[in-house]
Amino acid sequence: MKIDSVDFFYLAMPEVTTAADGSQDALVVRVSAGGLSGWGECEASPLPSIAAFVTPMSHGACRPVSATVLGATLDGPEDIKRLAGEVAFNSMDLLQAAHTWSGIEMAMWDLLGRSREVPAWKLLGYDKAFPKTPYASVLFGMTPQNTLERAKEMRGLGFRAAKFGWAPFGQSLTSDIAHLDAAREGLGRDGILLIDAGQVFGEDVDAAALRLDAMERNKVTFFEEPFHGSAYLAYGQLSNRTKTVKTAGGEAAHNRQMAEHLIDFGKVGFIQIDCGRIGGLWPAKQVADYAQRRGVTYINHTFTSNLALSASLQPFAGLEEHTICEYPTTLQQLAVDLTTNHIVPDGNGEIRVPDAPGLGIEVSPRALTRYAVDVEIKVGGKTIFSTPVY
Amino acid sequence: MKIDSVDFFYLAMPEVTTAADGSQDALVVRVSAGGLSGWGECEASPLPSIAAFVTPMSHGACRPVSATVLGATLDGPEDIKRLAGEVAFNSMDLLQAAHTWSGIEMAMWDLLGRSREVPAWKLLGYDKAFPKTPYASVLFGMTPQNTLERAKEMRGLGFRAAKFGWAPFGQSLTSDIAHLDAAREGLGRDGILLIDAGQVFGEDVDAAALRLDAMERNKVTFFEEPFHGSAYLAYGQLSNRTKTVKTAGGEAAHNRQMAEHLIDFGKVGFIQIDCGRIGGLWPAKQVADYAQRRGVTYINHTFTSNLALSASLQPFAGLEEHTICEYPTTLQQLAVDLTTNHIVPDGNGEIRVPDAPGLGIEVSPRALTRYAVDVEIKVGGKTIFSTPVY
Repeated sequence: MKIDSVDFFYLAMPEVTTAADGSQDALVVRVSAGGLSGWGECEASPLPSIAAFVTPMSHGACRPVSATVLGATLDGPEDIKRLAGEVAFNSMDLLQAAHTWSGIEMAMWDLLGRSREVPAWKLLGYDKAFPKTPYASVLFGMTPQNTLERAKEMRGLGFRAAKFGWAPFGQSLTSDIAHLDAAREGLGRDGILLIDAGQVFGEDVDAAALRLDAMERNKVTFFEEPFHGSAYLAYGQLSNRTKTVKTAGGEAAHNRQMAEHLIDFGKVGFIQIDCGRIGGLWPAKQVADYAQRRGVTYINHTFTSNLALSASLQPFAGLEEHTICEYPTTLQQLAVDLTTNHIVPDGNGEIRVPDAPGLGIEVSPRALTRYAVDVEIKVGGKTIFSTPVY
Repeated sequence: MKIDSVDFFYLAMPEVTTAADGSQDALVVRVSAGGLSGWGECEASPLPSIAAFVTPMSHGACRPVSATVLGATLDGPEDIKRLAGEVAFNSMDLLQAAHTWSGIEMAMWDLLGRSREVPAWKLLGYDKAFPKTPYASVLFGMTPQNTLERAKEMRGLGFRAAKFGWAPFGQSLTSDIAHLDAAREGLGRDGILLIDAGQVFGEDVDAAALRLDAMERNKVTFFEEPFHGSAYLAYGQLSNRTKTVKTAGGEAAHNRQMAEHLIDFGKVGFIQIDCGRIGGLWPAKQVADYAQRRGVTYINHTFTSNLALSASLQPFAGLEEHTICEYPTTLQQLAVDLTTNHIVPDGNGEIRVPDAPGLGIEVSPRALTRYAVDVEIKVGGKTIFSTPVY
């Protein structure tokens, strides 16, 4: 097959706020080849990601992603791996290319899986997929009381595990301790409690470490993204100071090496990969293999639609011991409506990666129209991008 | 002062080829505040970089760069440092933001310097600027004979040092050895010979190491970018296998930490920073300080205009022992015409950072018009960017 076209659908809620809620917009990608289509989603800023596909070339090492992808051969997994290397080289100086490519790569696995009638996780090399224990991924409440209520609510919905993240966490030690206590109280003694600091401590290891006592006492399983995504030394120092709590991170990785470095130098106990940023399913699968060899637990990072959730489950679907997975529970309506089928917890509170061809998720044509953001980009008087009509 | 506006000028040669020549287009930035203007240049793909400034917000951690910059206070260096932290946080998930911010940050130092009538390097904390020995930065010839001639030509122009880079290097061992021998022959026995592999070996340490014998024999000073910019382990392994040749890299760093990691984990002997990518002058100055403490030599990376060259000289202007600097010599006419003044070698073959306010380089209004690429971006029916009229 030859890749005939790559279409980008920029979708957004009517109102987008400064909440740390990644489901307020979406960049959905459709790759067409051999009369088939596959779908992916970039976990990225839509407009710059579209620009990275359509922009004129700057020079040989700063080519648009389209230059490598359009017209390329796609007959099997080896083609996807080869194209990944070519995009990395040809778009070396185009920073946003990694995020653009991520959604395209994902769509290619979906397309190949549909073509061969096998799930993507089988194409990645797994024989069997194991159930995962979803943790409800929510934001902290504005007050400890709100956090307590949110934790109880998640427990009431059947979640054994919950992750609380972002503001107001990090604003004051007293407040943080109150939120940690509240989250544990709401979740109950046996719940799995996870904390996401959203990089709020920058590189300040001491400030982050001040929260460790309250975390140990509240039996927090992991302390996610205390620092800037590239601050491996700060991660490493904090990791050396924890006892029962482990550090977690990796969502900022936009290539495989960054995730491996966070394991080796940041000494994280949990590596969290977003397939919509790291370059898709294949680098994520390589990180999962690497994590396993290093005794680190692999987890997906997902805060968008079920299309992205399915994609991010594929790379560790076959790892039986890596059981917890991120499961966004307070999605904006756009992210809910985007797919016609959904991944939902079963009676045991567990979820399963779809056992259907490709990613096993159907994109809703209605949502592509309903939430469409109209974009037109002209360069040198010529329209190089306009919102595709579904 | 309040930042009133930030204007982006996308310029390009009439024809852009796949040569690894970064001077074929340019993204020039003008920051205006308090009735003054400062100028900078992103070493980046123009369209995605513009998009990263004007795009609608995706969520609180994926805001356009404009959200942090426009209307912000700019009264001194501390404001630039504060804004850098704010951009990193507010645009955490917008990958291209680092490149966009780089040109803006540069323009802020230019503006502040002009406002206070001091060179940017003084604002960065240096009392004195030292001359640098420029190395002619050129591409390999297509044949060893071409490389020999190019080396002779550079020597004839008065350069004591020259760097040869990119294709055909890496294509075959025999050819590479012939090019290395030719470059040394053309440059003469006492010339400083530098080699840039342009990431061609990916992560293949053995393949890169096969070139070491011929490099040692030809007294190559450094072996630049053998690998992918994030492949610190490959760098570290190759660094352990060299004798007299040192490894060099860093141009891909889009934040300070990445450069520090390349020093610590990649064990490079030379750290090469492009202020148009790393986030401007301040992170580059911090890397220069870090390099000094670690016994590593700091060098600018520059393959564009003299505006970018001046910017990239500022962060190590005051380091007397870090003497060599990259000096592009085969610039496209656009990059020559972009500035009305130029940094040229003196009778000793040395160059000096301008001793004039700010970056000390004047942008040519004529070039901004002559090479302008017309861009228009509409989102939701509203024009959010159109090429500014100078």
